[in-house]
Amino acid sequence: MMNNKKFLIVGLGLLGGSYALALKKWHHEVYAIDIDPNAIQYALDHQIIDEGSCENDPALIQKADVIISGLYPKDIVQWVQNNQQYFKPNTLISDVTGVKCAILYDIQAILRDDCEFIGSHPMAGKEVSGVQHADASIFLPANLILTPTDKNTQQAIDFMYEFGKELRFNNICILTPEKHDEMIGYLSQLTHVIAVSLMNANDNKHLKEYTGDSFRDLTRIAKINENLWTELFLMNKENLIHEIDIFMDEMKSFRDILEKEDTQAMKEKFIQSTQRRKYFDIDS
Amino acid sequence: MMNNKKFLIVGLGLLGGSYALALKKWHHEVYAIDIDPNAIQYALDHQIIDEGSCENDPALIQKADVIISGLYPKDIVQWVQNNQQYFKPNTLISDVTGVKCAILYDIQAILRDDCEFIGSHPMAGKEVSGVQHADASIFLPANLILTPTDKNTQQAIDFMYEFGKELRFNNICILTPEKHDEMIGYLSQLTHVIAVSLMNANDNKHLKEYTGDSFRDLTRIAKINENLWTELFLMNKENLIHEIDIFMDEMKSFRDILEKEDTQAMKEKFIQSTQRRKYFDIDS
Repeated sequence: MMNNKKFLIVGLGLLGGSYALALKKWHHEVYAIDIDPNAIQYALDHQIIDEGSCENDPALIQKADVIISGLYPKDIVQWVQNNQQYFKPNTLISDVTGVKCAILYDIQAILRDDCEFIGSHPMAGKEVSGVQHADASIFLPANLILTPTDKNTQQAIDFMYEFGKELRFNNICILTPEKHDEMIGYLSQLTHVIAVSLMNANDNKHLKEYTGDSFRDLTRIAKINENLWTELFLMNKENLIHEIDIFMDEMKSFRDILEKEDTQAMKEKFIQSTQRRKYFDIDS
Repeated sequence: MMNNKKFLIVGLGLLGGSYALALKKWHHEVYAIDIDPNAIQYALDHQIIDEGSCENDPALIQKADVIISGLYPKDIVQWVQNNQQYFKPNTLISDVTGVKCAILYDIQAILRDDCEFIGSHPMAGKEVSGVQHADASIFLPANLILTPTDKNTQQAIDFMYEFGKELRFNNICILTPEKHDEMIGYLSQLTHVIAVSLMNANDNKHLKEYTGDSFRDLTRIAKINENLWTELFLMNKENLIHEIDIFMDEMKSFRDILEKEDTQAMKEKFIQSTQRRKYFDIDS
């Protein structure tokens, strides 16, 4: 099913570039569009893509069987709107966006009837950005989440499964866009708010020399791309605020039992968190 | 200075056992006292100690030049009180406790004048407990924090430096007991409250299949010994509540700017956290 497909990556950053690298490795033809001429030149020089353009070149767009958007969330709908007249009939379009509801339904609503958009979210990344850091190995430990709606065909879902397998994702799973955004609000966005707030709660640089691995592990994601994450948070605002509120209620409850020196209640909190965390061990 | 010193470990758990292992490796004579006969037998069988007892054997206690308490925080003062009549003159006593003010001044107040107690905190550990998991390599990446007071001699401080170097601690530093407890309230205790509360804020076990490394890193320390950490938190209650309050104010401030969709303020939070976190990179 993947055989002989030609891929176009729009937005050649870390994820788009890593997709391109992995697809080339498995002998697909890969094109890319990015507004940054340096990104395109770098990718051509390093054989990450076969052809590229800094503009929305109709000739390049209509060569693609599959288009994957690596654009920032707010730019995707606009890009599809402006360029879909160049799409080949039956083009499959997907994305890498970390929120789904805020963009997916809009794209499916405006998209030409003879093309199909299926949402996907590779839960992969690095603390650095740009095609210069592209790395096909970031998918190996990662989940690929597909978020089909009733507008999607089984064929498109099957194709994305095969795509995920070829790129060696550790796991491929399906969620509704709503469940995806709820899950990501807790597992990813809330954890980023916590890490950011923990760093911002203290300005003592001298603490570095006393810092252990736990603190470093917990705050690694406090190094964050401010433009991307501001968009992602705003697009999932209701879920994220809900998760922040639940978490803060839980912290408040712990604070209160500590203040009252209710040792039994403290122990119960620790026992519960220990039991729950065990489910998340990779080998459990 | 360390030459020919005989060490007694009281409380042969993970840390006490790891100290014993490391000291034996460098050819010191090491004794241990623990109420658990299995711990003592295991340590004897595996040549982790030279002699051991399940009781506070006066003959064993008075052989020691250096006594290190690996007991739970609340048991240390009592143990010194009950057993100091057996101490050899000039015995140096230290500990491994994660809080300092709540125990250190009490011990120094009751201790015989011809002996010396100096507080120390090896910031090392594992998610498992017991001498069966003793491992001298846990000190290699760790800090040893010494918390001398005006009751301590330069000789004792120098000795603990040498002790830390021989055990290959990555870093040895000095803090007042007050600064230690304030620092540990933020870097260690607050991060544990956060991890515990994050796990307790959601009971959906099915999230496991979507979980990425960030969430696992952030919640690893939610697996926690409920007896030990309840003691540690209560003994540093004021500092910890202060840190929880500052952190929750910061979270609340983030929540409010997200609710208002103040993108500029969100970006400033991200930029600040990114800059601050960079100071904590190991190679910075």
